Amino acid sequence: MELYDIIIIGAGITGYAGAVYAGRLKLKTLVIGKERGGIIVTTDVIENYPGFKSITGAELAAKVREHAMEYRDNVKFVDDIVERIEKRKGCFIIHTESRKEYRAISVLYATGTKHKKLDVPGEKEFFAKGVHTCGLCDGAFYKDKIVAVVGGSDSAAKEAVLLTQWAKKVYIIYRKEKIRAEPANMEKIDEKIKEGKIEIINNTNIKEIIGDRFVKRVVLDRPYKGSVDFPVNGIFLSVGIIPISDLAHEIGIDVNEKGEIIINRYGETNLPGFFAAGDVTDKAFKQAITGVGDAVSAVYSAYNFTKQRGRDMSMCDGCNRKIDECVRLHNR
Amino acid sequence: MELYDIIIIGAGITGYAGAVYAGRLKLKTLVIGKERGGIIVTTDVIENYPGFKSITGAELAAKVREHAMEYRDNVKFVDDIVERIEKRKGCFIIHTESRKEYRAISVLYATGTKHKKLDVPGEKEFFAKGVHTCGLCDGAFYKDKIVAVVGGSDSAAKEAVLLTQWAKKVYIIYRKEKIRAEPANMEKIDEKIKEGKIEIINNTNIKEIIGDRFVKRVVLDRPYKGSVDFPVNGIFLSVGIIPISDLAHEIGIDVNEKGEIIINRYGETNLPGFFAAGDVTDKAFKQAITGVGDAVSAVYSAYNFTKQRGRDMSMCDGCNRKIDECVRLHNR
Repeated sequence: MELYDIIIIGAGITGYAGAVYAGRLKLKTLVIGKERGGIIVTTDVIENYPGFKSITGAELAAKVREHAMEYRDNVKFVDDIVERIEKRKGCFIIHTESRKEYRAISVLYATGTKHKKLDVPGEKEFFAKGVHTCGLCDGAFYKDKIVAVVGGSDSAAKEAVLLTQWAKKVYIIYRKEKIRAEPANMEKIDEKIKEGKIEIINNTNIKEIIGDRFVKRVVLDRPYKGSVDFPVNGIFLSVGIIPISDLAHEIGIDVNEKGEIIINRYGETNLPGFFAAGDVTDKAFKQAITGVGDAVSAVYSAYNFTKQRGRDMSMCDGCNRKIDECVRLHNR
Repeated sequence: MELYDIIIIGAGITGYAGAVYAGRLKLKTLVIGKERGGIIVTTDVIENYPGFKSITGAELAAKVREHAMEYRDNVKFVDDIVERIEKRKGCFIIHTESRKEYRAISVLYATGTKHKKLDVPGEKEFFAKGVHTCGLCDGAFYKDKIVAVVGGSDSAAKEAVLLTQWAKKVYIIYRKEKIRAEPANMEKIDEKIKEGKIEIINNTNIKEIIGDRFVKRVVLDRPYKGSVDFPVNGIFLSVGIIPISDLAHEIGIDVNEKGEIIINRYGETNLPGFFAAGDVTDKAFKQAITGVGDAVSAVYSAYNFTKQRGRDMSMCDGCNRKIDECVRLHNR
């Protein structure tokens, strides 16, 4: 059983950036995560990571992963899913889906977010058969078809613009009055509206999703052009994201009302040794670059934490020897 | 007289990254600064900006600047030096060296740092004639010569390693016992010591710098190999940095005992509308990537500030009309 200085939970761009620094700081590091690159991989073009005028999400994630791989003397990666975190006096024990157990003095929790669902009849049944959460992944199936993006955020706007390259018509179905995209993206929406490729249906919700093998139509809660029956081939959900904070919450990490992990500017949580960064936190402005910057700060905090505390505290299983000796015993 | 939504003071990588986002958010933006790229331009190889395994400081700065130039519809750059900031009720007036005056609703202060000096006889006299602050800029003049790096920080270590490619011998003169470099850089130092290219003289200060047209030798405060007289051709100062915060301090921005601007995690200072990011702030871990991430957060805060406050407050010169009208008057 090895003892790591830091285990990074989450193999997204935030976790990878943390790994770059952990490696440089010569921390014995393990990155655990199955969704390589994280949610950013589902993003088409990223134009706002300073240094890259335009790059796909997948390319950017791959670049930062490769960057972290430069430090593979100190940094290991495992494709696995964390199922439970156990907090011991001197460390954290991470239990994974494949029944492995890893131990570390500190944790960087960078699990990111997942998509919210609508929670309406038909959604589960037609998931991946007409109901999707990633235009980039599944948009090409809808060449010359009619699709709807559900939501009114900047992400929804980007998703709609992206889908116009395949679909003959993209509807944005939004429960409120006015969508709120980043100004640069709002311009693109306005252009597409002028071209007749995008149309916004506001103040409207989807009540039900209906089809046979695939989605055929949805039922709206308000008539559109005289009918609540609305024919559509594909539905792309962009109704928000949920921070994946449950495992942290279970061991007493404070979260806010949205479920986001509360951190300070050093990436510290309420529990010493447990750090967090990226979209899973209560960061006001969630961007690839802010997650990356915060991961670097958090790893620096973890570095100071392990330096201060790491080498003279008792071990995970209550080993009372000096830690080096305990580590040797563990590593047998 | 134009009114900007935001003026970014400082044309370093932090300011440029702020400009990328300010441009994307369609803020009317002005970047003022003369030292294009900032202090990072004096750095040889950067291996810790996630996404770029290895890039020179000058290249990275140029990339982020070019990135910001993509938004030149909204972002203007002027090569000038800010001399004074004036705070009015509704805005900030920026006075520059070339007698220009610019007005803005908000400010991002990203001026960075400058090098500390030794403050010993001969230092001023021989500045740029043997006394330097940038190995990358001036190291090549010392091919097969003897140089000394003064300082014991990570920057000093990097500087020493860099200089070995030209100098036949690099001494590190450090006032304390043990230099403290990032582990990855410490390894490089140890290699060079083994090769006989680097030697550390610890617990020692330079008392005086002596030469004719150029530096010939220094006087140490403790004998080295039996003498306080130490022959050296070039001296590279790496004794620390000073935040360039004076102009902000003058208008009442809170700074800490090091002179660093105190910010919160949103990039806010104690003065509404006045934001700061990068090396000039009290950020614990000062890196290119953390400055960039924080600039993005700060610009987002500025965006919210201008949205909330910008469009109905009275103008810089006390114009009591609605702001659009005032702006129109100003722009005549």
